[in-house]
Amino acid sequence: MASALQVSILKITGDSARTVPDLLAIEEPLEIRLAFGDKVQNLAVTMRTPGHDADLAAGFLFTEGIIAGAGDVKSAEHAFLPCSENKQNTILVTLNEGVVPNLRQAERNFYTTSSCGVCGKASIEAIRTVSAFGAGKRVAGSIEGIDPAFILGLPERLAKKQEIFAETGGLHAAALFDLNGSLLLVREDVGRHNAVDKLIGAAMMEGRLPLAQSILLLSGRASFELVQKAVMAGIPVIAAVGAPSSLAVSLAKEFGTTLIGFLRNNRFNIYSGAHRVNTLVAEN
Amino acid sequence: MASALQVSILKITGDSARTVPDLLAIEEPLEIRLAFGDKVQNLAVTMRTPGHDADLAAGFLFTEGIIAGAGDVKSAEHAFLPCSENKQNTILVTLNEGVVPNLRQAERNFYTTSSCGVCGKASIEAIRTVSAFGAGKRVAGSIEGIDPAFILGLPERLAKKQEIFAETGGLHAAALFDLNGSLLLVREDVGRHNAVDKLIGAAMMEGRLPLAQSILLLSGRASFELVQKAVMAGIPVIAAVGAPSSLAVSLAKEFGTTLIGFLRNNRFNIYSGAHRVNTLVAEN
Repeated sequence: MASALQVSILKITGDSARTVPDLLAIEEPLEIRLAFGDKVQNLAVTMRTPGHDADLAAGFLFTEGIIAGAGDVKSAEHAFLPCSENKQNTILVTLNEGVVPNLRQAERNFYTTSSCGVCGKASIEAIRTVSAFGAGKRVAGSIEGIDPAFILGLPERLAKKQEIFAETGGLHAAALFDLNGSLLLVREDVGRHNAVDKLIGAAMMEGRLPLAQSILLLSGRASFELVQKAVMAGIPVIAAVGAPSSLAVSLAKEFGTTLIGFLRNNRFNIYSGAHRVNTLVAEN
Repeated sequence: MASALQVSILKITGDSARTVPDLLAIEEPLEIRLAFGDKVQNLAVTMRTPGHDADLAAGFLFTEGIIAGAGDVKSAEHAFLPCSENKQNTILVTLNEGVVPNLRQAERNFYTTSSCGVCGKASIEAIRTVSAFGAGKRVAGSIEGIDPAFILGLPERLAKKQEIFAETGGLHAAALFDLNGSLLLVREDVGRHNAVDKLIGAAMMEGRLPLAQSILLLSGRASFELVQKAVMAGIPVIAAVGAPSSLAVSLAKEFGTTLIGFLRNNRFNIYSGAHRVNTLVAEN
């Protein structure tokens, strides 16, 4: 139930690069199952940091209006599944006899799942979508020799365009750059996923997919789902101003995506796909 | 299709308070409907900032693996609904003849909805959950006369405990304080909603609900869903280090919740429920 994972990264500061250890916040799927009467129902899959899973499941059921309080809960325990490599990714909440959960609410409000559970290595398999450009393959590797100074300059190029964020402080931005540093597209939203979907949707409707010659800049952190969306669109390089999660890094490594994090203050970290970045001394 | 909403807020700087205009990032639900063959299916409700909704719907369908590309899409337009006060919150994507969407993927991966649409004032109704302590009522108003200096000191009290965030930079925290400033509970997660669910779940299982004498501190922004969860648990005061969204403020106002944002650098803004804060000159 560790909350952080140690990995080895390439840290770029100005024009120097060195390999250092780094800690990633762990992101793993948790499937919440509900047992009541003689039924067991898969209710939701949430991407969470392991730890306090029983609290998470109980709180989720309560704040979503499915149960009325602690008195409804008989137990909340990690479930052993036949397909399970890792029992820690499924939790079974059993209600007390006679308690009927309010599942009308649930049907309307969140994730449903029909899978047999999300567990260990199978978890990525279970929650990943089918990539038109990357499924089972590595993303196009045509981009190479990117200058670190080029990457360091991207946030400022975005800042000039990101007007609403500057006004409200409440929006995430996703921006698409070409290899000349031209800003091709930018979209903002209160939701990180929405900003990326708007961006990829616009590029798709303009006939630009796959985005094999593009760099995706994210104003916040990089989660599994954001990397997944980029892979779907064939984007080979993702640069996030914030931290990546453990599962974001795993997915990027699997697909050969270059994943950059903490891109700010004239520094960045490379978590995956460092071969696309020219990490010898940069010219400026 | 504005992305920001102007509101009047109370700005607290050190010991002075003044009413000023402020801009909120707009958060509204968007229901995505898919028409194919002779069917129309409600696929998802996402909380988004209005604007580029057709891009969002198209990108969502593509990155979730439901359609294969732009060639599948005949049109993407806001839908007029019988119950609709505001047609801008439902978008209908019509696929070209013969295109069969991959909905197996969809069933597993995200929100399903059985409502008649989310529109205008009805939108909050449609997506809100049933509050055991607050449904249709205002939250308990027993907290009053909170000293601004007390609120200003909360982030530092949390920082002392939030160890993993300090190490990874990748986690959100939710913390519960009592009126003496004692930290009752803290939970961290890659997901903001999960951190709050873990916190409320733990409090619930300890028999502490409703949390009528507590203050919820959020390390990030305050969205509609986070305010909703706090209302469910009977929490009267929410203080966020980041920005609130428009719908978070609407919901807080409706339930009489005190909503504080941008709590940092010896300042904060009060968006709702200012009566609980002693906004005359503070003692220190």
